[in-house]
Amino acid sequence: MRAVDLIRRKRDSGELSSQDIQELIAAYTRGDVPDYQMSAWLMAVVQRGMSRQEVAALTDAMLHSGRVLDFSGLSGRKVDKHSTGGVGDKTSLIIAPIAAAGGLKVPMISGRGLGHTGGTLDKLESIPGFNVHLTLTEFQRVLETCGCALIGQTEEIAPADKKLYALRDVTGTVESDALICASIMSKKLAEGIDALVLDVKIGSGAFMKNMEDAARLADLLVETGKRMGKKMVALITDMNQPLGRKAGNAMEVAESIEVLSGGGPADLRELCIELAAWMFFLGERVQSLDEGKKLSADLIASGQAREKFREIVELQGGDVGVIDDPRRLVQARQTLQIRSLMDGYVASIECEHLGLACVVLGGGRELKEDKIDPAVGIEFHKRIGDAVKMGEPVCTLHYNSEARLPEAGILSESAYVITAEKPNTIPTLVHRVIGT
Amino acid sequence: MRAVDLIRRKRDSGELSSQDIQELIAAYTRGDVPDYQMSAWLMAVVQRGMSRQEVAALTDAMLHSGRVLDFSGLSGRKVDKHSTGGVGDKTSLIIAPIAAAGGLKVPMISGRGLGHTGGTLDKLESIPGFNVHLTLTEFQRVLETCGCALIGQTEEIAPADKKLYALRDVTGTVESDALICASIMSKKLAEGIDALVLDVKIGSGAFMKNMEDAARLADLLVETGKRMGKKMVALITDMNQPLGRKAGNAMEVAESIEVLSGGGPADLRELCIELAAWMFFLGERVQSLDEGKKLSADLIASGQAREKFREIVELQGGDVGVIDDPRRLVQARQTLQIRSLMDGYVASIECEHLGLACVVLGGGRELKEDKIDPAVGIEFHKRIGDAVKMGEPVCTLHYNSEARLPEAGILSESAYVITAEKPNTIPTLVHRVIGT
Repeated sequence: MRAVDLIRRKRDSGELSSQDIQELIAAYTRGDVPDYQMSAWLMAVVQRGMSRQEVAALTDAMLHSGRVLDFSGLSGRKVDKHSTGGVGDKTSLIIAPIAAAGGLKVPMISGRGLGHTGGTLDKLESIPGFNVHLTLTEFQRVLETCGCALIGQTEEIAPADKKLYALRDVTGTVESDALICASIMSKKLAEGIDALVLDVKIGSGAFMKNMEDAARLADLLVETGKRMGKKMVALITDMNQPLGRKAGNAMEVAESIEVLSGGGPADLRELCIELAAWMFFLGERVQSLDEGKKLSADLIASGQAREKFREIVELQGGDVGVIDDPRRLVQARQTLQIRSLMDGYVASIECEHLGLACVVLGGGRELKEDKIDPAVGIEFHKRIGDAVKMGEPVCTLHYNSEARLPEAGILSESAYVITAEKPNTIPTLVHRVIGT
Repeated sequence: MRAVDLIRRKRDSGELSSQDIQELIAAYTRGDVPDYQMSAWLMAVVQRGMSRQEVAALTDAMLHSGRVLDFSGLSGRKVDKHSTGGVGDKTSLIIAPIAAAGGLKVPMISGRGLGHTGGTLDKLESIPGFNVHLTLTEFQRVLETCGCALIGQTEEIAPADKKLYALRDVTGTVESDALICASIMSKKLAEGIDALVLDVKIGSGAFMKNMEDAARLADLLVETGKRMGKKMVALITDMNQPLGRKAGNAMEVAESIEVLSGGGPADLRELCIELAAWMFFLGERVQSLDEGKKLSADLIASGQAREKFREIVELQGGDVGVIDDPRRLVQARQTLQIRSLMDGYVASIECEHLGLACVVLGGGRELKEDKIDPAVGIEFHKRIGDAVKMGEPVCTLHYNSEARLPEAGILSESAYVITAEKPNTIPTLVHRVIGT
């Protein structure tokens, strides 16, 4: 294998064999292929694309660049969910306990906030004491004990992805379905799962703004997983407005506990039940999606999902007191209401602005090394189609520092598009299901 | 300037400003932009191309990455010729003295053999004592004294090109008109010339095999030079068979002396007179191409061109005895005749095979660090359209080692395509002239 030959072949739209890709990724991970050759190859991939077979081979090569967990000795199907990211998307915190309470095993390796979107790890860490840095041995022990464990990426999982992602970020080679797919799937398949439910977000608060792009990526993700022997489904869900009523790390934990306690906003509750139902269906715990929804709703109503969350928090060192009294979670000292400047209806929401407002308040990172403030966030009072009076609050900022409050205020205010006429269409929650 | 933004813009077919390109190349030359970003950018350029304005800006940025010679104090127009490379192409050794004898200044910075093609420096070094490693001060002194100097690339000339070329070689980013043009022109314009004659070769012994590719590159080279205030012309000339009757370093010097002495093969003599005529025309020494041809022929006939070559050799430390007695040049110990296997006519020649046979005999380099044997080479007896009898020699190999003689023999034998019928068309020497 000469790297330059593989670069030239991809440059000229040729197809690489699985062995070519395997050797290239292995040599790059070892350091035998330098960054400058890999970045030229990545750019050729961005421009020329990859066949389905190549994407599967790349995923497999990245997966096997590190440790692949094996939970085959554990009873119950191993099922996970992955979201492409949005604003207020706290579903992982809710459906992982539901799925585990229903008998599935959920070995969930999550990420941090990225750009305007939040991250599961940052949210969990707003629970005092919660430790997301388990060793893989501890991870397995928690998983065995309560059926679910929630940790961050470790050095042992898919090191090729870590190295490639850092390179892609600085070489303009992020935007490629093939590379995005291999990155997501190599990390998820390293969890040793049997099935995966994908939540591909589209809309003003998602990385993908239109259905065509989202459907293409979803289809590729599903096919790649299936080629590797996994049960797969992708839901294309709406991110034209925040999910639920709260964004911000501790605020989202509080809202998750509301849903696990049988309350919470309808949209969030509905999506969680839908995603958990798919996990049960793919995990062969139920015979139909409807049965899965009923099981999910029952596990909430009976308090079993909430108790499962308590177990997880306890096993990972967190303060279980927050579950009964969410006011124990850290809270911001100040609030500022953002008011409508006119009478009318919410016609649309620039959801990415709301995510960025949350980052500006300190709830996310602008640089990788930034520390986040778990207390800050935004409460959303109006959804698309809601009537609003002049002077009525559309959202409330929860903040600790006034330094960048004006910026957050402008971003939030500008996010709400108010019109005199009521909008004709309200976005549905689940746009399409791909892979069944 | 953030390199990643420029990579992304080129990736998406955007155009970069001259300032963007200037800053990128300057930062790369300083080491502030790493190889892995530059290679991603180069691959985006290979895929997306560059506008004429971008190519001129890139050429200018690479040119000004190092020292630009200034011979404006010297009387006479400064004119050079550049060839894209072929087999048996020794025209530089002949036309540089002709042009200098006719009053032009020829500050020629040449290269070494590349792949199957020979290099002017390697040929000159077969003259005992000839020094191609002059300092720029010595270069200027020789140029002032005799009107011509012939040296190799120095560290001071276009260092960005040196760095970029090494990177392109290992990242599959050689094949780009824009990058090839900027590489050629930045080095040539650093010579401080007023005008440049380009000899773009096409055919079985050239890097470019078809007219469309050659004409597109020639046009880009001419326009780029003109944008930078230079007089330019490009001749697209034939390389479907070797130029002249000899290939190999010392053998080509001997043949060059034949032409400078009024003899030599007709095709070589004709092309040299044509190229020199264009140099005189662009250098405003004559009013027409015909006048230029007559001047060139006269300078040969009067012995002035040959005397000029003697001056150059003497000033650059070479043994001038070889001019009167070419047998003083090193000669191979053995010869092997390659014979036709049938009666017929030479229908075509795989000219690249002959160039490679010369490399295999030791006349060129397979690795950059290989030492070459100046004595070895090939004498060509038959040209396209010539009748040939079974058993008659088509060429003669001159060799010192038998180690790879069979390989060279097979390459040479397979180069000649013999058919029963005489071919309908014989390639003309000059296919097109671009830029007037």
